[in-house]
Amino acid sequence: MQNSLTNLQVVLKSRPLGVPQAEHFELVRSPIGEPSSGQVLIQVAFVSVDPAMRGWVNAAANYAQPVAIGAVMKSFAVGRVVKSRHPKWHEGDLVTGLFGWQEWALVDAEVIDRKLDPDMLGNLPLSAALGVLGLNGVTAYFGLLEIGQPRPGQTVVISSGAGAVGSCVGQIAKIAGCRTVGIAGGPAKVALMREQFGFDVALDYKSPNFVDELRRACPEGVHVYFDNTAGSISDAVTSQLATRGRVVICGTVAHTEWSPPPIGPRIERQLLVTRSRMEGFIAPDYQHRWEEAYKCLSKWLLDGRIKVVEEVLEG
Amino acid sequence: MQNSLTNLQVVLKSRPLGVPQAEHFELVRSPIGEPSSGQVLIQVAFVSVDPAMRGWVNAAANYAQPVAIGAVMKSFAVGRVVKSRHPKWHEGDLVTGLFGWQEWALVDAEVIDRKLDPDMLGNLPLSAALGVLGLNGVTAYFGLLEIGQPRPGQTVVISSGAGAVGSCVGQIAKIAGCRTVGIAGGPAKVALMREQFGFDVALDYKSPNFVDELRRACPEGVHVYFDNTAGSISDAVTSQLATRGRVVICGTVAHTEWSPPPIGPRIERQLLVTRSRMEGFIAPDYQHRWEEAYKCLSKWLLDGRIKVVEEVLEG
Repeated sequence: MQNSLTNLQVVLKSRPLGVPQAEHFELVRSPIGEPSSGQVLIQVAFVSVDPAMRGWVNAAANYAQPVAIGAVMKSFAVGRVVKSRHPKWHEGDLVTGLFGWQEWALVDAEVIDRKLDPDMLGNLPLSAALGVLGLNGVTAYFGLLEIGQPRPGQTVVISSGAGAVGSCVGQIAKIAGCRTVGIAGGPAKVALMREQFGFDVALDYKSPNFVDELRRACPEGVHVYFDNTAGSISDAVTSQLATRGRVVICGTVAHTEWSPPPIGPRIERQLLVTRSRMEGFIAPDYQHRWEEAYKCLSKWLLDGRIKVVEEVLEG
Repeated sequence: MQNSLTNLQVVLKSRPLGVPQAEHFELVRSPIGEPSSGQVLIQVAFVSVDPAMRGWVNAAANYAQPVAIGAVMKSFAVGRVVKSRHPKWHEGDLVTGLFGWQEWALVDAEVIDRKLDPDMLGNLPLSAALGVLGLNGVTAYFGLLEIGQPRPGQTVVISSGAGAVGSCVGQIAKIAGCRTVGIAGGPAKVALMREQFGFDVALDYKSPNFVDELRRACPEGVHVYFDNTAGSISDAVTSQLATRGRVVICGTVAHTEWSPPPIGPRIERQLLVTRSRMEGFIAPDYQHRWEEAYKCLSKWLLDGRIKVVEEVLEG
């Protein structure tokens, strides 16, 4: 059947400076191939758009290899196995992996991350496998619990608290018995943090009194700061660190260019005086433990303890 | 006997801005008191001058209480018990503690940190108890081994590598099987690092080619950076961090004023890309384990595996 169709793919046309635009990509149509031995053909249901992809379109590798010009844009995706010539995978399996922005993915079996357990998905849409039951979820889970090491009663502050990762971090921190303070920009995101994601305090960093509001929200200081920004929001939060605070560096979206690094207040004295720790984190380093996270996250999702607001674009 | 003598004390006269000078202190003579119940009279043999004392003379407390104007300058010291009215301590005991800059210390028994084991001292001078067998030694020991977590074959870079703490860190790192790169200013300190303290590479940060020399000295990147400076030296070192590098923030002497913090390149992206950790550390947090460190350090000193260059001022 698929031989009569063509594959629609999005390929990288040029490398963006700053925020990537449509002009940096190109739509191409190509035939759908037949799997050779060891390969699997997947019909892709959902592809994701993640902050990490910004790094993938740079020429220089950071912790992942860059996407070549003319290659299919790399992305996480979820789909169904249509044909398999590998003994591990079978027609009908729901699978995730780096299948890229395309309708059909003909991949070596090793590219498949995992088979989804239908019980774990329950009534959730398949796209959940790209959100809380995907990279966002494991990023929130291990970043908060392994690097942040929150303890019940402690205050956890989260920048980009209305985002896919931040909203999940806030909800896991509540499950862990913490007080949560979410930070985002504008009243819509603040309302989302407070009403949907259950943050104890939701702050707008655009408020002229943001620093004072943050201080009042953290009377015992900040025990854990889960940071997606690395800018002036972070400067406000780290100046309020409690003794032996933990800062999880998960993203740096406040600055798009880091070569050379932007300038800001030095953090060393604050880390020394409070004996705090600041640590960079990416979820792939915990890939051997993702199944453990998926089990917890799935239970919390199905129990309604974690809520998701998905933004799904068709076509 | 001591009643016929007077006690010579150094008291804090005013709070310095920047580097403390003689004018900020005053010499006073006062009678030597008699211990009341629970107190101990100590004849002080050596007092120390440590970087941490700079913080103690500030008005604002950081991680220690400030010294009051008119009070005896707080410092670590070593001496001999002359009279005791506490059952734990006896005449002739060699003891250390925060006895301050004075010839005689009349203190509550709780002020005494520990009794020195003469076997642990061996032929070493009593002043060793203020150096490698004192706060400097436990700072190097726990800062490097607990926070830095060096593994054999890894590269450990140390700023202020010719200093009391840094020279000890470098030698412990060699004992731990690491390559050591020491950084200090000027040819005399560089020679000291290379010839006395056995660093594999000794670099002068005043060299016009310092950054290149550092890069060549760390072909696999910097696995552990033990930092006493927090300035441009640190910027050069942290830009060379290996994957999962550890930065131990032990001191910040490159800047004397931190309110507001000085400006420098933001570290977040570098920590994220390399998944490195930066952590503040002070040795008193490990006080419950100091005896363990003293046992190791004493053995290494007596075996000649750690060498000491002491600067002792008389009077």
